[in-house]
Amino acid sequence: MRDERLTKLARVLVNYSVAAEEGDQVVLAGGAAAEPLIKAVYARLLDIGATPIPQVALPGMQEVFFEHARDVHYEKTPPVIRAIYEGADAFISVMAPTNTRALANVDPAKQQALGKRDKDLQEIVLGKDRWALTLFPTEALAQESEMGLAEYEEFVFEAMALGEEDPVRYWSEKAGEQGRLIERLEQGREVRIHGPETDLTLSITGRKFLNGDGKKNMPCGEVFTGPVEDSANGHVYFGVPVAVGGREVSGVRLRFEDGKVVEASAEKGEEYLNSMLDADVGARYLGELGIGTNYGIPRATKNILFDEKLGGTVHLAIGRSYAATGGKNDSSVHWDLICDLRDGGELYLDGELVEQNGSFLDFDFA
Amino acid sequence: MRDERLTKLARVLVNYSVAAEEGDQVVLAGGAAAEPLIKAVYARLLDIGATPIPQVALPGMQEVFFEHARDVHYEKTPPVIRAIYEGADAFISVMAPTNTRALANVDPAKQQALGKRDKDLQEIVLGKDRWALTLFPTEALAQESEMGLAEYEEFVFEAMALGEEDPVRYWSEKAGEQGRLIERLEQGREVRIHGPETDLTLSITGRKFLNGDGKKNMPCGEVFTGPVEDSANGHVYFGVPVAVGGREVSGVRLRFEDGKVVEASAEKGEEYLNSMLDADVGARYLGELGIGTNYGIPRATKNILFDEKLGGTVHLAIGRSYAATGGKNDSSVHWDLICDLRDGGELYLDGELVEQNGSFLDFDFA
Repeated sequence: MRDERLTKLARVLVNYSVAAEEGDQVVLAGGAAAEPLIKAVYARLLDIGATPIPQVALPGMQEVFFEHARDVHYEKTPPVIRAIYEGADAFISVMAPTNTRALANVDPAKQQALGKRDKDLQEIVLGKDRWALTLFPTEALAQESEMGLAEYEEFVFEAMALGEEDPVRYWSEKAGEQGRLIERLEQGREVRIHGPETDLTLSITGRKFLNGDGKKNMPCGEVFTGPVEDSANGHVYFGVPVAVGGREVSGVRLRFEDGKVVEASAEKGEEYLNSMLDADVGARYLGELGIGTNYGIPRATKNILFDEKLGGTVHLAIGRSYAATGGKNDSSVHWDLICDLRDGGELYLDGELVEQNGSFLDFDFA
Repeated sequence: MRDERLTKLARVLVNYSVAAEEGDQVVLAGGAAAEPLIKAVYARLLDIGATPIPQVALPGMQEVFFEHARDVHYEKTPPVIRAIYEGADAFISVMAPTNTRALANVDPAKQQALGKRDKDLQEIVLGKDRWALTLFPTEALAQESEMGLAEYEEFVFEAMALGEEDPVRYWSEKAGEQGRLIERLEQGREVRIHGPETDLTLSITGRKFLNGDGKKNMPCGEVFTGPVEDSANGHVYFGVPVAVGGREVSGVRLRFEDGKVVEASAEKGEEYLNSMLDADVGARYLGELGIGTNYGIPRATKNILFDEKLGGTVHLAIGRSYAATGGKNDSSVHWDLICDLRDGGELYLDGELVEQNGSFLDFDFA
């Protein structure tokens, strides 16, 4: 039982996203539920002479970790795990949760401690710059998205443009149009996000925008930068709910003064929100401004990998910025929150309207 | 849904078999189908402050490897995999095949090439001397054993003595009686195996017997040595069929001259047998003589981990010997074949009868 789209996705990940070559050791990490995709990627890596290093996670292991781990387990990344990351040339990760709420009742402090412990791993991966993150449709994700599995599979593969004869060409063309948008944005200094319960300005002066061309994330379709750390002023309402850290957080409202979050509330998950903001100094400052350009995603599904790409939305991440953008936020947190512009929202660059009601004025991402 | 016996097995493996301690990095390798046991062992390792390093294999990945791997993939163990083995302190492996015949049609030469490639890994594991191999009951194993799954679970847990209140004590006591048997054997020089179609002599002069006390294998119950390499003379019939390398081999007949296999046939799997014998020089010489003492295993199930322990059988391995026995066979092969003594078989030590019709004359392993 083969789905041709998985073969296509494997090619995109191996040949386009991480551009694997003969002799490369490629960590292939994923949940066991992603078995069909993991196998397809494994086969593709072998076909081109690369060496796959599967790192498969069983359902429920994270819960066991948080239930049984002792202080010593939060102190440092196990050296042999570190050795895998240090030795590998590239990384392909496949999310395939079998329960998106499995960690709902885990102490967020533990989750942050684990995040801090493994921050070095993140840096190794980002530093090598050859990594890709994708998702395999599971019942749990379909449930979270309020769809049947077959319906959700269509949703996922559509967002990844796997119905295209040549998905790599599709993503390359999208990257071209995004490049035009970036040219315009990098000429500007101030971004203003305006909409329902939202009026926020931030500076992007001197910062680089990166082109979400489907290499790092699949699906993709966004351009993003790290805003100037002390520049955010105003308030913003994130109307798109998000499942994060095994729980749901929705209706987040943040108020910024000179870059810092000075007021925060959430309709659901406020305790988690506050614990994230308190994780370290950088967690109260922005690390990312992203603009979604994927109009193949019809609606939000509480999944950040998809929702942040949603055409007609912008997202802001508290915490760590990507160094390549010029961002200087060095937090252990990186959490994206999504602001929907599709119903009365506007995006301005130096006072000029760029996007209105979720549609770009001068760019074509259809 | 917890089976108390899995918790017991996890304790046996962690505390007794590899004697894990705080700070140890313990590789926990297994098939994804062993999920309940892997989780129990993972939890137990965390409980005692050790660091589990799960290495989970998905069903069918081996087939993908053999189908897609190129020459380069047989050349050397991937360095990051080697780094895991070099860095780890102990190893717990759980077999849990979902198809015991999955590799039936794979070229045995490929399987041997992979075995040779990873021989160093084996040596790292054996050298550290803290490893345990066990099995989790799956439908495939039950099918191979011609039982229902529930019935097979009872079979497996009975063989492991997990019904005992304190399985570690049980295995320690069995090891005591095995120690007495070893004392007797190590005073002897020549072993003769006699039975239907079988009359083989081999020298054990100066060799050590090891005590299969449940630390390295679970279940266990055997004593074994490496016979003097050029000493085997005669012929032997291995009446117990074995599933190996993803296929069945049965009715093996070997004739030895001065240690070397000079004639070989099999009722089933003869091609595979011959390819094993031709893998390297050592593969035509014996590496192990083992004597089963586990009378909690009622019958053979084509599974070497169980069958070689079967009370009333002896087994001989072609290929690599365990260095600790004094054996000097350095082959990439180690393949156990089982000779049933329960119906008219006899085991002699320097001409004295030790075991007859599968029962020991002076030792109690009931």
